[in-house]
Amino acid sequence: MNINEESLKLHYELKGKIEVISRKHITTREELSLVYTPGVAEPCRQIAADYEKSFQLTRRSNLVAVITDGTAVLGLGDIGPAAGMPVMEGKCALFKEFGDVDAFPICIDSKDTDTIVQTIALISKSFGGINLEDISAPRCFEIERRLKELCDIPVFHDDQHGTAIVVAAAMINAMKVTGKEMGKMRIVINGAGAAGIAIGKLLISMGFGNVIMCDINGIICEGDEGLNPGQEEISHISNLGKEHGLLADAMKGADAFVGVSRPGLVTREMVASMNQGIVFAMANPTPEIMPDEAKAGGAAVIGTGRSDFPNQINNVLVFPGIFKGALAVRAKEITETMKQRAAYAIASMIPEDHLGPENIIPSALDKTVARAVAKAVADTAVEEGIARI
Amino acid sequence: MNINEESLKLHYELKGKIEVISRKHITTREELSLVYTPGVAEPCRQIAADYEKSFQLTRRSNLVAVITDGTAVLGLGDIGPAAGMPVMEGKCALFKEFGDVDAFPICIDSKDTDTIVQTIALISKSFGGINLEDISAPRCFEIERRLKELCDIPVFHDDQHGTAIVVAAAMINAMKVTGKEMGKMRIVINGAGAAGIAIGKLLISMGFGNVIMCDINGIICEGDEGLNPGQEEISHISNLGKEHGLLADAMKGADAFVGVSRPGLVTREMVASMNQGIVFAMANPTPEIMPDEAKAGGAAVIGTGRSDFPNQINNVLVFPGIFKGALAVRAKEITETMKQRAAYAIASMIPEDHLGPENIIPSALDKTVARAVAKAVADTAVEEGIARI
Repeated sequence: MNINEESLKLHYELKGKIEVISRKHITTREELSLVYTPGVAEPCRQIAADYEKSFQLTRRSNLVAVITDGTAVLGLGDIGPAAGMPVMEGKCALFKEFGDVDAFPICIDSKDTDTIVQTIALISKSFGGINLEDISAPRCFEIERRLKELCDIPVFHDDQHGTAIVVAAAMINAMKVTGKEMGKMRIVINGAGAAGIAIGKLLISMGFGNVIMCDINGIICEGDEGLNPGQEEISHISNLGKEHGLLADAMKGADAFVGVSRPGLVTREMVASMNQGIVFAMANPTPEIMPDEAKAGGAAVIGTGRSDFPNQINNVLVFPGIFKGALAVRAKEITETMKQRAAYAIASMIPEDHLGPENIIPSALDKTVARAVAKAVADTAVEEGIARI
Repeated sequence: MNINEESLKLHYELKGKIEVISRKHITTREELSLVYTPGVAEPCRQIAADYEKSFQLTRRSNLVAVITDGTAVLGLGDIGPAAGMPVMEGKCALFKEFGDVDAFPICIDSKDTDTIVQTIALISKSFGGINLEDISAPRCFEIERRLKELCDIPVFHDDQHGTAIVVAAAMINAMKVTGKEMGKMRIVINGAGAAGIAIGKLLISMGFGNVIMCDINGIICEGDEGLNPGQEEISHISNLGKEHGLLADAMKGADAFVGVSRPGLVTREMVASMNQGIVFAMANPTPEIMPDEAKAGGAAVIGTGRSDFPNQINNVLVFPGIFKGALAVRAKEITETMKQRAAYAIASMIPEDHLGPENIIPSALDKTVARAVAKAVADTAVEEGIARI
C-alpha cells in the first residue's frame, strides 16, 4: 500500500482527525446547572461587563481558527472548501499535538476578498487567534492586512510567516556551520509568491546581507514592470546591487539558495557556481534539486521540506509555538520581533556542539520546540508592551 | 457559595467547557506524513472528485455548529457575541455528553439578517449540521428559512423546534396520565414568540385539538392586527372557535396550559378554571406559576423547566438525538415527521406502567434518550427517502 492509499484508509477509519469534547462530564443535576442553565448566566454577565474576560471564561483562551478559502491547498490548487478540509484538520491536529493549542478548521465558500475578510472578522470573537492557510497569492496579503486591522486577536498567515521563520532558523544555524558572516551573505530566494516574499522580508529584517528575489522571469529588480504589490514592496529592500538576469546569474557566488518554487529548477552546475552554498530546496514533494545532486555540486549545507532527508525545514516547528505564546499572554498581534525571536529560539534548540551540516534544525517531531518558541513569543510580547495578561 | 458564584468559579477553572483534540497521536514521521503532507493530499483529491465523501473523510460526519448572534441569550437579552459564548459552549458540551455529537460554538458579530445568513452559509461546508441558538424573534424565522434553502445540511433552530418536541413528548404522556383525548384537547399556549409558535405548530400537526395562542395582549385570533408573520401564520390553524379575550378567558375549561412567557402570569384561580388541567409552566428560572400553587389550583399534571421539581421539560432531551440521527444517515433536513417521531420516542422512554402525574418525561440526565431520538430521526429519514448514507 502506498502512502496515498494508506492515508485514505486512515481517513476513512478516523472519520475526521479532530474531535470536540466536553471538558466537564455532566452526570448530575448540579453539574448540568453549573455548565448550562441557570448557572451559565453568570459568566455571560461577567463577559458582557468586561470583554477581556472572554479570554478567561471561554475556550478563546486557547483556541485558534485555521481558516482557508480552499484556493491554494497543497499543490492541488483551487479545490474548494470541502476538499480543503483534510489539510485544515491535519493542521489542527498538529496544533494540538505539538503545542497543546486547540485549533478548529473552517473553510469559507467564497473567493471574494471582501467576503472572506468580512466572514472571518464576523466570527473572530469566537477565537483567540486566526491562522490563515492555503489562500492564494496575491490576495492573501490583502486579506491578512485587513484582518489585522479589523480583529483584536493575532492574525497569522502561516504559509508566509511560518515558512519564513523556520527558514530563518535554519539559515542562522547553516551560517554558523559554514562560518559565514550574516551581513555579508548573498541569499537567493527563488519563488516570489507569498512564502518567498515573507522569507525575504524576515531575513532582511534580521540583518542578513543582500537578498536577491527571483521568480519565473529571473531576478526581481526595483523598477521592474509587472510586479505585484508584494514584489514591488520587497524590490526596494532587496537586490541592493540592482542586478538583472536569470536564476543562474543570481546564484553565481551566492552564499545561500532558498527555493519555494518548483521541482528541478536548480542544476548541479548552478550549485557549483555558489560560494560554499547553503541550499534549501523546499519545493514539495520534489525539491528544486535533489540532495545528492546538490552535494555533488559542492553544497555545504542542504535542507529540504522532506522528512526522508536530513534538515527537514517544516513549519510545524513554528505555528504551534507562535500561537501558544501569543495566547499565553493574550498578545494582540504577532510582531516582526516575535518572528525573529522565534527563529532564534528554534535555532538554539540545537546545542552549538551538535551543529553540523546535517543537523541545523530540530526534528519536526520534537515537541519541546513549541515550548521554546512560545516562551520567546510571550517574552517578546511582554517586552513590547502588547501582552494583555 | 450560590449557584452563580459556583458556576463562575468552575468557568475560571475550566478555561472553556469544550476542547478540540486530535483523534490521532503523531509521534512518528510516518504518522505525520499520513495525517498531514504528503499523504493528506489523497483525501483532498477524493473529496474534490466526489463532494459527498466530505461526510466520510472529515469530521463533518459528526459535527454540528452551534451558532448565535448573541441577541437573545437566556433571559439576558442582547449581550453580544463574546458574552453569549458560555451558553454556546455549554450547549456544545451537552451535545457531546448526551449524544456523542461533536459541536462547535460560533458567535457572529452582526445583527443584520442578510449578513448572518450569508456568514453561516459561507462556513456551512465545514459542518454536518447547523444548530441555531438564542437568535431573537422574529428574524430567527427568516434566518432559519433562508438557511434551509441555502445549505445542504440540516438547519435546526433549537429554541423553536427543540422546545416544541420536548413539550410534545411531555404532552403525549400527560394526556395518557389524565385520560384525555388528543383531538378534543383545548391547549392554551402563552407566549407567541419563537418557542410558543413552534410548540403550537407541532402540537397541531400531531393532531392535538384546539390550540389557543396567547400573547401579552391575550388570545390571538385570525385577522387580528399587528401580528408578526409567524403569529399570522399560526392564527389560521389555531383558535378554531375564533375566540377573543385574555389569557384567563382562554384558560377556562382548557385541558392544558403551556407557558413560555414570564414568571407569575398564571394564578391558582386560573388553574382552577381548567378542566383537570395539565400545566407546563416553563418560564425560566421562575415559572408562570409555582408547582405548589398549580397543585393547590387542582392541576392534574405539572411540569416546569426546572430540575428541582418533577417533570423537567428540557430540550437537552431533544437536540443531541436529533442531530445524532440526522448525521448518522446524512439527512438533508429535519422534517416535520422527524420532529413528531422524536416526540413519541422521548415519550416512550417512560414505560406505560411507570407513567404518573410526576413521571411524564425522562430525566434530563438520561443519556439513553438521545439514542432513541436518533433512531427515530434516522428511521424517518430513510422512510422519507432523504437519507444519503
